[in-house]
Amino acid sequence: MASPSPADRRLVEEVCAGQRRSIARAMAVAESTAPGKRALCALIHRRAGRAQIVGITGVPGAGKSSLVRALAQRIRAGGRRVGIVAIDPSSPFSGGAILGDRIRMTELAGDPGIFIRSMATRGALGGLSPSTHDVIDVLDAAGFEVVLVETVGVGQDEVEIVQAAHTVVVVSAPGLGDEVQAIKAGVLEIADIHVVSKSDRPEARKTAADLRTMLRLGSIGRIGSTWSIPVIATSAQRRDGIDDLVTAVGGHLAHLHATGEIAVRRRRIVEMRIVKAAEDLVREQLLVRRRDALEAVLARTLAGETDPHAAARELLGAAVGPAG
Amino acid sequence: MASPSPADRRLVEEVCAGQRRSIARAMAVAESTAPGKRALCALIHRRAGRAQIVGITGVPGAGKSSLVRALAQRIRAGGRRVGIVAIDPSSPFSGGAILGDRIRMTELAGDPGIFIRSMATRGALGGLSPSTHDVIDVLDAAGFEVVLVETVGVGQDEVEIVQAAHTVVVVSAPGLGDEVQAIKAGVLEIADIHVVSKSDRPEARKTAADLRTMLRLGSIGRIGSTWSIPVIATSAQRRDGIDDLVTAVGGHLAHLHATGEIAVRRRRIVEMRIVKAAEDLVREQLLVRRRDALEAVLARTLAGETDPHAAARELLGAAVGPAG
Repeated sequence: MASPSPADRRLVEEVCAGQRRSIARAMAVAESTAPGKRALCALIHRRAGRAQIVGITGVPGAGKSSLVRALAQRIRAGGRRVGIVAIDPSSPFSGGAILGDRIRMTELAGDPGIFIRSMATRGALGGLSPSTHDVIDVLDAAGFEVVLVETVGVGQDEVEIVQAAHTVVVVSAPGLGDEVQAIKAGVLEIADIHVVSKSDRPEARKTAADLRTMLRLGSIGRIGSTWSIPVIATSAQRRDGIDDLVTAVGGHLAHLHATGEIAVRRRRIVEMRIVKAAEDLVREQLLVRRRDALEAVLARTLAGETDPHAAARELLGAAVGPAG
Repeated sequence: MASPSPADRRLVEEVCAGQRRSIARAMAVAESTAPGKRALCALIHRRAGRAQIVGITGVPGAGKSSLVRALAQRIRAGGRRVGIVAIDPSSPFSGGAILGDRIRMTELAGDPGIFIRSMATRGALGGLSPSTHDVIDVLDAAGFEVVLVETVGVGQDEVEIVQAAHTVVVVSAPGLGDEVQAIKAGVLEIADIHVVSKSDRPEARKTAADLRTMLRLGSIGRIGSTWSIPVIATSAQRRDGIDDLVTAVGGHLAHLHATGEIAVRRRRIVEMRIVKAAEDLVREQLLVRRRDALEAVLARTLAGETDPHAAARELLGAAVGPAG
């Protein structure tokens, strides 16, 4: 890698000093595919590593956004700074703003100890992925003690994003239909903390009891951890259970450090980041930089002279090892 | 690529002759990461290309599975054979079977002109992606005239799978909450045909009118196509609108051929497949075959000697071109 430019170094210092405009600018570069992006992200990555990253996921309609808002306010009340990265299109922090939720967002946006970044996913029309992890690094380097990352836990990319966290909170809502809940099944097993939202609803008690039973029977839960996964009932409206959630999030981090599990978790996060970066790099190379090569092999695939796997292998060249 | 084995050639002939056990066996290989997978898939790909691939997507709760069932039965009644690939965890064809929907599935499974394959996504715990397109190729080569591919249109991988179709059907349900509908917004623009399910519900008329307004205003719809996107109200229970949907699906294919848009569509599908195959190949290489190299660079990343992007670039080597 080329040595970083003086401008990059200055920007990084401003980010680390917590200057909001520089944070926003660094994020814009991190989300882009600009040529200088990787040099800047490498510099920022070196300054990150102190924040607790908390992934929050659940099906649409589970009330994740209200929970994130209540959680952020409570952590702020305790004196810590909070970064929020919202990748959920239903979130008031991102796409939900379209639905008129902007008011709720500004409720937090006036606080200098809170920084909110909403990101779109690669989207329906394909293209390149935004670099969620690089954006998290910016908030981390800028000294936000907690970074909340919110996604919809349905798509596999979205689940992987939230899973690259120190602490994963899975939100279940009482009274959602079976079809919606079924989707969540695969997500339940990645939770360090379960939240049952909308605890004012009558079905909430049953949902919490069901989760506790599943945990007791071992049908969900993390292998190789001694952490006892709590089930917390919350009501963002009434602010019920939010203190318990803050305590659990802090308790989980303390557990990771006390048991040494933090090393395992950090390793897994870095592994996911490297693999994701490799995938993104390949996609970018093919769609942008090596477009001509893609076009050529595409024409031959359409003509039936080769097939998509062989075409991909050919494009990747020798770097990917012997043919399988 | 090594020349195909006699066993592979025989299996492919059996697949093309429509032998169900051979189809299932070829699919199992296509879904696997077995060493011989690519050779077999290349052979099968050469025999595929006649089926109309119809992607069907929508948010959880939109009634996609009931629609797929009704659609498959109606196409069968017209004498054509139908393959179904269900990647939706809420589908009765895949994960939904857990919920006791198996009865509905067997309703179709007794028909030799229907072949159903349910697939899991890469899942919450990461790992390798199943090769949806290779499975579709098997059904295509086996002579199924129509292949219905069902996913939940929320995650970006899932949207891309369904988008790699000749005809994309997006299912909207009346009366789902705003938060759920917001997620769908990004999916609406990929539709060739809109379906409003559960047309017996009073809100269905408004949902259909909203879609027609959006289409008229050009806020959704495909750029560069002269196809007039229909909005079809269906009720899977009452079998309302299913004939219209079959007609629209057939009409769309005829339109693609008449206008030459089929070439654009085929190109896009192959491009998506090549890029996806390249990503999968890289993931597989790193997680499985080049695990030692990944471990080594992972250790250096954890030690702060490098960053995830540089680590990925180093692992991919020279194949991905000059540093950016």
